[in-house]
Amino acid sequence: MTSSHISTGKPDAAGLPSGAPGLAEIEAAAARLAGHAFLTPLLESAALNERIGGRVLIKAETLQRTGSFKFRGAFNKISQIPEAARGGGVIAYSSGNHAQGVAAAARLLGIAATIVMPADAPVIKIENTKALGAEVIFYDRHREAREEVAERLRAERKATLVRPYDDPDIIAGQGTCGLEIARQAEAAGAHLDAALVCCGGGGLISGTATALSSLSPGIAVYAVEPEGFDDTARSLAAGQRVTNDPAARSFCDALLAPTPGELTFSINRRLLAGGLGVGDQDVARAMNFAFRALKLVAEPGGAVALAALLAGKFDARDKTVAITLSGGNVDPATFARAIALPGAA
Amino acid sequence: MTSSHISTGKPDAAGLPSGAPGLAEIEAAAARLAGHAFLTPLLESAALNERIGGRVLIKAETLQRTGSFKFRGAFNKISQIPEAARGGGVIAYSSGNHAQGVAAAARLLGIAATIVMPADAPVIKIENTKALGAEVIFYDRHREAREEVAERLRAERKATLVRPYDDPDIIAGQGTCGLEIARQAEAAGAHLDAALVCCGGGGLISGTATALSSLSPGIAVYAVEPEGFDDTARSLAAGQRVTNDPAARSFCDALLAPTPGELTFSINRRLLAGGLGVGDQDVARAMNFAFRALKLVAEPGGAVALAALLAGKFDARDKTVAITLSGGNVDPATFARAIALPGAA
Repeated sequence: MTSSHISTGKPDAAGLPSGAPGLAEIEAAAARLAGHAFLTPLLESAALNERIGGRVLIKAETLQRTGSFKFRGAFNKISQIPEAARGGGVIAYSSGNHAQGVAAAARLLGIAATIVMPADAPVIKIENTKALGAEVIFYDRHREAREEVAERLRAERKATLVRPYDDPDIIAGQGTCGLEIARQAEAAGAHLDAALVCCGGGGLISGTATALSSLSPGIAVYAVEPEGFDDTARSLAAGQRVTNDPAARSFCDALLAPTPGELTFSINRRLLAGGLGVGDQDVARAMNFAFRALKLVAEPGGAVALAALLAGKFDARDKTVAITLSGGNVDPATFARAIALPGAA
Repeated sequence: MTSSHISTGKPDAAGLPSGAPGLAEIEAAAARLAGHAFLTPLLESAALNERIGGRVLIKAETLQRTGSFKFRGAFNKISQIPEAARGGGVIAYSSGNHAQGVAAAARLLGIAATIVMPADAPVIKIENTKALGAEVIFYDRHREAREEVAERLRAERKATLVRPYDDPDIIAGQGTCGLEIARQAEAAGAHLDAALVCCGGGGLISGTATALSSLSPGIAVYAVEPEGFDDTARSLAAGQRVTNDPAARSFCDALLAPTPGELTFSINRRLLAGGLGVGDQDVARAMNFAFRALKLVAEPGGAVALAALLAGKFDARDKTVAITLSGGNVDPATFARAIALPGAA
């Protein structure tokens, strides 16, 4: 595989794509986040280990500030905006978790935030974003390009755009999740064979894979995506970025990016072992299992890695595997439907 | 206050009631539990801190093996049964969480377990207990005394009875929860002003208060109970054990003990600052808040301490307070009703 399809250019001396953050940038992000983000636990469940026949370590980013990992990247990015540029505020487009992360980080830093959200985003995400003091502007997911709506507002307001994933500071921030996984696994006496990471645009997994590749040598990192939105898996197989069918639908609202990020994919194609796809039914069963056996609230997009494990998409027998439970912002009605499934645990 | 009402006798040299475990027994229990129980996280939530106006540290025993703290005491007790007595198995009576704790500990130790459970226990607790390999025998909560049913079976089978709370080994095991709270709070740079602990028969709070009194001097520990089952609060006020009205009802199925334990109360009357009562509606709102803001699944009885805080029964403004979220074994239908409450977060 060559890097000829990657517009971000050739690898630098350390083997990283041009513009990609390395372990040093992730450690710098961790220092910025200290005292603001929570060190979320790496949990273990006897019931899950027995069911899988291996050792599973669950990175519970559901317990992160704003209920998902997104606060990490947002705070790392926004805290580096120069004083002179802060008056214009920040702007972001997001289906909801990045929205909350940006809103919370901006509020902590005393900066105004405007968020462009799809009109059909989960109510809990819209309400939480507003409760965090952000201005919310809606768009129609199927008729408008959110990037264009955000760009128009950015220019009008002289604001700083906070991209959801294709930005080295965002990637470095999300990578602190991988840094913690590596250190917490070591403290638990675990040698990680693999990591299954929820994947939308690829920010969490590219940063996490960067940290884990350095700190857990030999680990195999897999992207887990909803069926129909498995653009990263197919792009990895094709050796170049491909897009999803615009007609595809999934209830994993957090993972509906149309194509991998340019920078994230340039990292992921070097570091990932492959991609796994899960169906909505697999995901609902995983949410049900998380409720019954783990006592954790996971949103659809946050449960895909657990779903891949439970549905047998990855054979973890006799292996030690870390998974991300990346978000827990789910409406009560959606959650109630998932936990009502019979015999799903 | 004298000890004249307490049948367990006068305090020993260390100021503990006769027969009560001290810090040394709790540390010995922690050593037995190492590698079997999980070190559950002491979590913090920005949303909860803001709502309360103080710093709240949440001991998430919902994430313990079997979904509640009960495994701690059960394993500490059962692991000390002499080899010669193990053939008769163990027997316990329980509304469900002690049942699962005993079943899981007995299975790990290769000992048969028989559990006497009320016929109206939550289905999830009955199913989980059976899934852990225990034999379940039902009784009618309103017509039979579970102690008598268990005693008859114990004599027939030459089994060892594992009491739910009134046993020094059970209390020492549950006390490891307090040991962890003290150490984790210290690691988080927190000086604890108070702890609110869920209370049924008093095993968790008597052990936890013993550990916290030693390791967090000056802390005020409060028992939190359902209204109508506030026997510990009223007993503390009366200076002797009183019983609940048999006609009382609450959906906090884990906390329906009729009166404080003899040994647990002899400890609690010395160590507790008082008791707080919460109504079913307070508890349902706390479950809702735990779902929306904390992303944690709490059962009714496990949510009473959080409920006391949210309902303003304890003023935590500008204080640092630890609370136990003691269990998460709740049927989907009950949980769905709690999270459907409007505007509860």
